[in-house]
Amino acid sequence: MAGMPNMSSHFTGQLPLAPSSVPAPGQQAGTYDPTLRVTALGGGHGLSATLRALRLIAGEITAVVTVADDGGSSGRIRREMDVLPPGDLRMALAALCDDTDWGRTWRDVMQHRFTSKEGTEATLDNHSLGNLLIVALWELLGDPVGGLRWAGALLGARGQVLPMSTVPLTISGAVLSENEKGELVRRTVTGQSSLAAAGKNTRVSHIRLEPENAPACEESMEAIELSDWIVLGPGSWYTSVLPHLLLPELREALVRTPARKALVMNLTTDTAETSGMNAADHLEVIHHYAPDLRLDVVIADQDAVQDAQGFVEAAERLGASVLFSRVGAGSGTPTHDPLRLALAFQEAFTGS
Amino acid sequence: MAGMPNMSSHFTGQLPLAPSSVPAPGQQAGTYDPTLRVTALGGGHGLSATLRALRLIAGEITAVVTVADDGGSSGRIRREMDVLPPGDLRMALAALCDDTDWGRTWRDVMQHRFTSKEGTEATLDNHSLGNLLIVALWELLGDPVGGLRWAGALLGARGQVLPMSTVPLTISGAVLSENEKGELVRRTVTGQSSLAAAGKNTRVSHIRLEPENAPACEESMEAIELSDWIVLGPGSWYTSVLPHLLLPELREALVRTPARKALVMNLTTDTAETSGMNAADHLEVIHHYAPDLRLDVVIADQDAVQDAQGFVEAAERLGASVLFSRVGAGSGTPTHDPLRLALAFQEAFTGS
Repeated sequence: MAGMPNMSSHFTGQLPLAPSSVPAPGQQAGTYDPTLRVTALGGGHGLSATLRALRLIAGEITAVVTVADDGGSSGRIRREMDVLPPGDLRMALAALCDDTDWGRTWRDVMQHRFTSKEGTEATLDNHSLGNLLIVALWELLGDPVGGLRWAGALLGARGQVLPMSTVPLTISGAVLSENEKGELVRRTVTGQSSLAAAGKNTRVSHIRLEPENAPACEESMEAIELSDWIVLGPGSWYTSVLPHLLLPELREALVRTPARKALVMNLTTDTAETSGMNAADHLEVIHHYAPDLRLDVVIADQDAVQDAQGFVEAAERLGASVLFSRVGAGSGTPTHDPLRLALAFQEAFTGS
Repeated sequence: MAGMPNMSSHFTGQLPLAPSSVPAPGQQAGTYDPTLRVTALGGGHGLSATLRALRLIAGEITAVVTVADDGGSSGRIRREMDVLPPGDLRMALAALCDDTDWGRTWRDVMQHRFTSKEGTEATLDNHSLGNLLIVALWELLGDPVGGLRWAGALLGARGQVLPMSTVPLTISGAVLSENEKGELVRRTVTGQSSLAAAGKNTRVSHIRLEPENAPACEESMEAIELSDWIVLGPGSWYTSVLPHLLLPELREALVRTPARKALVMNLTTDTAETSGMNAADHLEVIHHYAPDLRLDVVIADQDAVQDAQGFVEAAERLGASVLFSRVGAGSGTPTHDPLRLALAFQEAFTGS
């Protein structure tokens, strides 16, 4: 199965998961609900983890993906052509690929990055084929959503992948960091890649998107409207999770929808973007940028929550209960395990 | 249908083709033979025309494609990565795409070329997505033939596309041209794109491939061995038609096979590569580079043959009869019409 983790690393004895309840690769678990509609918002590896979990339990999955990336292959493409940055969209599609030789092969082709020979101009180096394929579809069809449908069809994707906006976005923010004299200095940083790499001991604030009133993607708004559940996070807090809340149309759709909402916390709180912030601070940031947004449940790995009581109280201020669940892959990297996360979603969605 | 010409331009009254015998788009003509095995050798637009014709009449098509291109997108890819030049292979695949919305869309995606914005580095400009996709498959699978199978599967290709060799080739030749004083000067030109663009009033000779004893692709040799018919031409005589005869293993396979052989002449004889050569001279060139090769039939448009008697005699020296047939698209460009060429193949293959 796409992204199915190595089973041997799972059964450590600590797991609240009996081996017999693990869906066999290629089969659906008994708890798979073909009519369950879930829309996941995010970008990058965090969204990928959410989608790999959701495909195990929900039949109607939509990914609403940030389009503010300006680094790497996507950034180079974006500077050279008038298109959305395709990278986060490609990763989401890859996470949803069909669990067949066909789906996995085209996933691997989409995810493939070129390596140029030493001593050449290296113009293709590190470009992802999938990024280029999506851009070709966009140029050919003149329609971001239509192009992504064709890319999804190629992969036999178990769900649809949509951009949060149909125009490329730029994210900027204020970064507070110490200078060499130990003084706190604030500077404005523009661009997702610069923000995410602002360095150690920095703190990000005053995040905004340009253009400020960019249109949300119609189909994304519709998915949010019609979903049973919305999932936010995990992911880079300022550059993958927050952008959706900064787009006015999308934020209003999230506030307005009758869908219930789950937020998945990261497995580490202290990243380049969120230096010194604890888990409760992460919730405060959500509240700061979307004061009208109410959540139903916050899923957190206990290991990543320093002050459980403060965290539960912060969640309550957002209207949410906390579901503590061991969702880390346990491999030493702060990566969500798809199967554990699926189980947490199932518990969160059914309340059991 | 892929490449189906505009019907209205066909029925000029001069055609030896009754409207009722034209296969409707999407249907097969009554003369389609699902068991007929045809292998077409060549490259570029010429091979594309042959394949678009063959798919109307033969069920088992193999294209054996030159891999000596060093210009354009393929040339840039080849300089940057250790791979075969993919362009001619891509064009052959496109010509065989399934006649469905799926096949035509992925054909168009494969054929799509990027256009970079003014004032950028333009590193992707004019790269063909299909070239990059084929290279990604090669890098991923480590197998030129396997990669082309996957690309063919994507297009639902009606046949297989193979490289003539599994290593990239370089073609070189002597070019005879007038200098500014009107003297004939001979120089060695290396590279397919330089040869094809050697200029007006030049004549090419002493064509050779490097490496000289490059291995032929096993599957290509097998297709040649097992075919009912082999088709050579049309195409750039020195850079698309001849290269197959310069590779010793492939030339020997062509001489050895019990398959019958058809050669399709170009619609113009006086190109940059073949300045001053008439149609009979084109046959002499074939004989010069492959003296043991015998042909069964030469298909030529009467308009492109200056001296019919001399041409028929040159064909006889190769063991071939001449089938004169109106195969040009008649649009003013020297392009073969797929339907007319299919009819000529049918007459050539069945002798009726």
